[in-house]
Amino acid sequence: MIVRDLNDLMTTDRAVSDAKWTSVRMLLADDGMGFSFHITFLEAGSEHTFEYKNHFESVYCMQGKGSITDLGTGETHAIKPGVMYALNRHDRHILRAESELVMACVFNPPVTGNEVHQADGSYAAMAELA
Amino acid sequence: MIVRDLNDLMTTDRAVSDAKWTSVRMLLADDGMGFSFHITFLEAGSEHTFEYKNHFESVYCMQGKGSITDLGTGETHAIKPGVMYALNRHDRHILRAESELVMACVFNPPVTGNEVHQADGSYAAMAELA
Repeated sequence: MIVRDLNDLMTTDRAVSDAKWTSVRMLLADDGMGFSFHITFLEAGSEHTFEYKNHFESVYCMQGKGSITDLGTGETHAIKPGVMYALNRHDRHILRAESELVMACVFNPPVTGNEVHQADGSYAAMAELA
Repeated sequence: MIVRDLNDLMTTDRAVSDAKWTSVRMLLADDGMGFSFHITFLEAGSEHTFEYKNHFESVYCMQGKGSITDLGTGETHAIKPGVMYALNRHDRHILRAESELVMACVFNPPVTGNEVHQADGSYAAMAELA
């Protein structure tokens, strides 16, 4: 059994920050669960364009308020506590944080911890990082 | 993109209750994500013995206070918001809720929605349910 506390990880290299977001990697590929699990904080007022070409991702809102626009369909959905979105088609999207968003995120395949967001908004596939 | 709101699902058959717990299935196997994602409520004062012989599961505490005992090692860990445990060895365990626990749970392989907890505390494997 693995037991980890978000508060302990916040000051370690498992907390990774990029442009106006911080992601705390609670579980990564080497934990052997077959998925990775992250708590992600998006700054109030920030806007993010992502497209995970190589991963499925689900995102559950625990705190905050914002919106998500599916760039494939043009539809916008409100984000608030209790709302989950799942990128089951590697959907390119814009996520907006009106107030700070705190999200529980699951990636399949699991993130290794070495990925960075590429210019196109994706994470590299694991094979590309090997 | 799939978008679902916990509050909408609470009154549907995606909210499943058993002995002193309710689990809301936000994502199931047929969503095709390769994992399932559940928000689970465990009643204050309840105690649960589980052993997922056929699944890996991670559980992140969003609200409440309790403890988990790993029945393999005898170790007990405090559960509070920010603490995650991952059953990477199908660990048999006892979960205790001092106050109501609200947990974000991920299962791999994904739960189909038809499983019930068996007498030994496990969920049946998908093949057994086919």
